[in-house]
This record gives sequence, structure tokens and C-alpha cells, in this order.
Amino acid sequence: MAIITLTTDFGLADGYVGIMKGVILRIAPEARLVDLSHEVPAQDIRRASAVLARAIPYFPDGTVHLAVVDPGVGGSRRALIVAALGSFFVGPDNGLFSEPLADTNARIYAADRPEFWLPAPSHTFHGRDIFAPLAAHLALGRQPEELGTPAGAPVRLPPAPAPRRLPDGSLGGQVVHVDRFGNLITDVPGAWLAGRGWSCRIAGQSIDRLSISYSEAERGALLALVSSAGTLEIAVREGSAAASLGVGTGEPVLLLPA
Amino acid sequence: MAIITLTTDFGLADGYVGIMKGVILRIAPEARLVDLSHEVPAQDIRRASAVLARAIPYFPDGTVHLAVVDPGVGGSRRALIVAALGSFFVGPDNGLFSEPLADTNARIYAADRPEFWLPAPSHTFHGRDIFAPLAAHLALGRQPEELGTPAGAPVRLPPAPAPRRLPDGSLGGQVVHVDRFGNLITDVPGAWLAGRGWSCRIAGQSIDRLSISYSEAERGALLALVSSAGTLEIAVREGSAAASLGVGTGEPVLLLPA
Amino acid sequence: MAIITLTTDFGLADGYVGIMKGVILRIAPEARLVDLSHEVPAQDIRRASAVLARAIPYFPDGTVHLAVVDPGVGGSRRALIVAALGSFFVGPDNGLFSEPLADTNARIYAADRPEFWLPAPSHTFHGRDIFAPLAAHLALGRQPEELGTPAGAPVRLPPAPAPRRLPDGSLGGQVVHVDRFGNLITDVPGAWLAGRGWSCRIAGQSIDRLSISYSEAERGALLALVSSAGTLEIAVREGSAAASLGVGTGEPVLLLPA
Repeated sequence: MAIITLTTDFGLADGYVGIMKGVILRIAPEARLVDLSHEVPAQDIRRASAVLARAIPYFPDGTVHLAVVDPGVGGSRRALIVAALGSFFVGPDNGLFSEPLADTNARIYAADRPEFWLPAPSHTFHGRDIFAPLAAHLALGRQPEELGTPAGAPVRLPPAPAPRRLPDGSLGGQVVHVDRFGNLITDVPGAWLAGRGWSCRIAGQSIDRLSISYSEAERGALLALVSSAGTLEIAVREGSAAASLGVGTGEPVLLLPA
Repeated sequence: MAIITLTTDFGLADGYVGIMKGVILRIAPEARLVDLSHEVPAQDIRRASAVLARAIPYFPDGTVHLAVVDPGVGGSRRALIVAALGSFFVGPDNGLFSEPLADTNARIYAADRPEFWLPAPSHTFHGRDIFAPLAAHLALGRQPEELGTPAGAPVRLPPAPAPRRLPDGSLGGQVVHVDRFGNLITDVPGAWLAGRGWSCRIAGQSIDRLSISYSEAERGALLALVSSAGTLEIAVREGSAAASLGVGTGEPVLLLPA
Repeated sequence: MAIITLTTDFGLADGYVGIMKGVILRIAPEARLVDLSHEVPAQDIRRASAVLARAIPYFPDGTVHLAVVDPGVGGSRRALIVAALGSFFVGPDNGLFSEPLADTNARIYAADRPEFWLPAPSHTFHGRDIFAPLAAHLALGRQPEELGTPAGAPVRLPPAPAPRRLPDGSLGGQVVHVDRFGNLITDVPGAWLAGRGWSCRIAGQSIDRLSISYSEAERGALLALVSSAGTLEIAVREGSAAASLGVGTGEPVLLLPA
């Protein structure tokens, strides 16, 4: 029986996520349910897309990833099923699935068969009425082509400014995520940093060298290292780099050859 | 094996909910556990009752709904088991189950058989010591009459001021819930709104017509529509109606025939 | 199939906990996963240790307790597996497991066999790369001695100031935890209070006698009783003792024979 992961901006107070789980378990009583995050900021498709993208490689093949951050609910945006990266993705066609859609083997379907939804779906809560039932049917082993029609031109997020190798040999990037600890996760690939020394500039501060782990720094000291997501991270040992530097997402970072 | 849902005001930081789950799984190792909400404001029985009421229809028959918002723990309030609406309900007798108790076929039991509780129950945490074990025994297939004694006169919440049809053809109601998005959920039934046009007055603002979905409004614009719970909702597209209007639960709303 | 509990300081927003669950379910698809808390304050080993200690007795034998509050990740601190109290414990060797390590029959292992980890573990997220896989292997029935090497001298938290019986017959202790309700949980054992009357002094206030349950006090009144954890608790009925008294962890409490 497949795993279904859930990623939403619903929060955990109102019971909306629990309702989606009830809908799933009525259809697929054996499905394994795993929450990725329900604390995505309201309507923040890019954040939800990133949370989901980071998690995909750690789930087994056949996992169904249900994601509902859906400012266009009830309008003309399509309901999407994507088969890619060995997994399935169900949710609104608004860019949430930019990462799996980059898989050149992705198969894309518009979910247009109401017999697989709850009857009389609302215009405001497709997570409950359309996407949860579809995820449950996929977990039961139904194929996407049973649940929808092949479709083209899915919505993808406009690419973020890419990290770049500058002519003088330095590297430029930016902070793309601030986690609960205040760690600043950038978009500079760890692979670009291998094989030589670098110093790092961010928010007017300079970090002389890259570390391997937090434990190399003194408590409260700023350090730079390759994060668990594989990109450059700026951190404060047992503290918050975001608070210490007063910066957040979008902050530029520069790496200079040592 | 039955599903057990959990609704409490315990929060997720202290580990109390996890402890209840341990107690359940020792008795019913195969039970499916689904959190509805643990972020109910402390002692807010009405809110917990509403979260639970909204969720009931989406769970399969035989589900056990465990709810613990329990300001009277350790006093004379009874422990209740209710069989109603095809489901079971376990928790303190304080109004939490007003919705299932409105089922005229509800069977009501006082849970008075300590052999189905943890030994030596505390006076402050019946969620762990009494209600979690009872929910587990129900999930195992025991009947309420094995776990307690038929009882009458359960506590129900005093009815909220009901929405009303006014002599001039207008409709009056109030905001009964503000969700994470700042959507204002009212008590005016969607069924009262069918078949003709309405304009809506709330907090000194007027909304000319009812919408079908959020997507009909411009980003940031106020709109009124029938919510996923089936009642009138006031929302701001990709924004917070609660913040925009500066109002919350209890705010009056008026509907005028167009 | 065993239960795996999870206790971290990761929060629920970033998806880190969901990723650990994906890793576990790839190895042990049938494991039961129960969250204890992910809202432990960042790097607060003592708090995590206490949350875990309170929960242990309520889980069945053979449960695997996975705890990751890990300021020393990537440094020289060891990865630990402890078999104690009928359960297994997996996490960093930093004091998280002080309670099970007090079991004189505890068996302690350094987890030093990378074939049971994810390949190429990161230096910043051992929860995902080392501890989650180990917990999954234990849930599958592997023994600790297969996953590591017997080890000595595990890290334990320095003991907190112990509650004490004073020469004049009074008892002194302190607040060790403030829960979501603002209840003040102290370290004074309930067993010390049995068999006679006591009055209680805290933050300049005096409480004349001990109560059995919250329901003995008027709404808003201060009371003292034995908590569900078995120690003295100071509470305000349907209110917050922490807010009312303006105190928190570490606040002294004194009990005088009545």
C-alpha cells in the first residue's frame, strides 16, 4: 500500500488536514499518511514547491505526493496528476510541481473525471473534494490515465535568479530558504565548492573559510558549510544566522576563491 | 480496524498527545490515528465542538472520535461515550459532543467501568488515563454498553444565537469561525441563499453580490461566497478578511435581497 | 511491527520531520510512527530529555524512541543506541537519554556501522542520514549489537538541583516545566506529600492546602495539586499560573506542614 504525503498551507488548528485524511481513509483504508508541512505561509506556492522538492528523494517509489496551496481554487486552473521521478503528484496546476515537471519523462494529466471526486465538490476546498480522493485512488493502485486525460503546458514557477560563476572566478547566489533554526540556505551548489578553498561574504560580514560541520565553530560564531540539501548554508552555531545578520530570503551571497 | 481521531487543546509541544497515542497503541496496536486539531484554544469547548462537527461526515462509519478539552477534569463531570451518526465519541460530558447528541438516535453511556481505564487514574489527565483507553477498546470492537452504563441528560452547549430570516426579507447572522487564512465563516446557511441574488453587509462594508469562488475577485478584494462548510463566508482573495475588516467571531452579517 | 516515536527541535514547517519519516518507511514500511514533540526549543537537550522521559512508560515494550536535538552534529559526539526500560533509544550521545541511562540494566552501543546508514551521510542532518535508518532497522527487529559496538561513558545531563527535605520539616523544590496551559510542574515528588496536609509558597503567594483536582478551585483561583506526571503542580483553574504569577522554569517552591 502506497504512502501519501501531504503538503498544504492549511495550518493544523482548523481541522482541514484531518478532514482530508478522513476522505483518503474512506477510499484507501490502508494508505500510509505522512505530513510534510502544513505551515507553508498562506498562498506561498514557491515555498511549498521547495518543501516538496527536498523531500521527494527520500520517499520510496510509488509514493503519492498530495500538495494543496491553491489560491486559484474554484477558477479555471486545472487539477493535475503528474507521474514523474518514480512517484505521483496530485494538486492544482499552479507551479507546485515545478521540480517533478523538470523530469523529462514526466507524464502529465488533467484530472477531469468527476466520478473519482467527492460528489458535488465545493468551489473553495478542492483539497478535500478533488485532490484527496484522487490521491487515495492512486494509492489504491489506479493509474493516472484512469483518473484524467493527458495534458500539456503545465504551469511552472518562473525560475529564481540562478546562482552564477562570475568572470573573476567568484560565485554569486542568494538565500532561498530560512529554516526554523535561522539557518540561511542558499542556491549555490555544493558541487561548485569542491576542490578548493573559498571565503564567503554576506550582509557585510566575511567568513574566511568553509566548514564541514557546525561543530567546527565556537558557540555563537558565524560559519558557512554545505547544507543537508547540498547547497551552501550560512549558520550560527547554536544560534540564528537570520537574526544575527538581520537577513532573510533573497539576500545575496558572494564566494571568493581563497 | 477502526480509525481514532484526536481533538484536544493540548498543543503539540509538551508531548501529551504522543502519550495518549502510546496508551492507545498498547491496547489497540492496529488502530489508525488521525489528528483533527490540538491547537484548540485552552478550554474552548465550543471551538473543539465545531472542529469535530465539521469533520464527522468525512470519516467512515465506525470511526472513534476522541476529544479532550476538559476544564472540569477530576471533578464531578462524567466521562461519556456516545454512539451516534454511525460513529463513536469519547470524552468529558461538557458539551463537546453537542453535534452528535443532536442525532435523535444517539445512544449515551456514562463510562463508569474502571477495568477499562489505566490503573490508578490521575485527577488531572483523564485524556491519558480514561479516554484514550476507552477509545482504544472501541477501536478493538468493544461496544459502548460493555464500557459504561446508559445515561441521560448529557451536557449540551447553549445554542449560539441562530441566524434569522427578518420580516423585510433580509437575513441576519454572525461570524462563528475565523480560519488560518482569515476567512470569516458565518452561520448563515447556503441553502437560504439559493435561487436569488443578495448583497452583503459586514463591518460597515458592502459586498454587491455573492461569488461562486475566490477566483472571481481581484487579488485583495473582499468577496462573499458559500464556504466549504456550506455556510456564508466572507473572504479576501489571497488575503485576510479578518485583518482587512478588523473583525472576528461574533461579528454580525446582514444579507439584503438584490 | 514496532512503534517508532520521534522527538526533535525541527519544528513542523520545514519538512525535515517528514523527510525522516520517508527514510524510515523505505526501510521499515510497516513501522508505526508517533510524534512526541517537534516543538522542543532549538538545542534544548534538557527539555527534549524530559518530554521523552515522561512518555516512555506509556509505550509498549519494544518501542523505538528516536530523538534528535543535536547541536554537536558533524563533530566528535557519538551516535548512540541504548536498550533500556524494555525499549530502544536512538540519537546523539549528548544527554538526551539520561532517563533510560539511569536504568542499571541499560545496554549502550556506539552506532559505528555505516552499512546501516544512508550512503554518504551529510555533516549537518544525522537525523535523516544516520538516526532514522537505525531506528527503522531496530523496528524491523535487528538487535543493537548488529548496528553498533558496546560502548561506555555515555553523556548524561548534569543533575538538576534536587528537591530537598529541610530540617524544619518543610520541602523545597523548583518549577521544572511550564506546559501549554501555563501549569507549573515542579520536581517535588507527590509521594513526599502523602499522609498529611501542606501549604505551598511560590512567588510571594501562599496556597493554604493541596487540592486533588482543578475542579476544587474557583475559576481563576490559584491551586496546588499532584500533576499527572506525579509531582507537585501549581495551576490556575481555567487560566495560566505562569502568567498569573509571572514565573517560569527555575522558580523556587516551598511546602510547609499544615
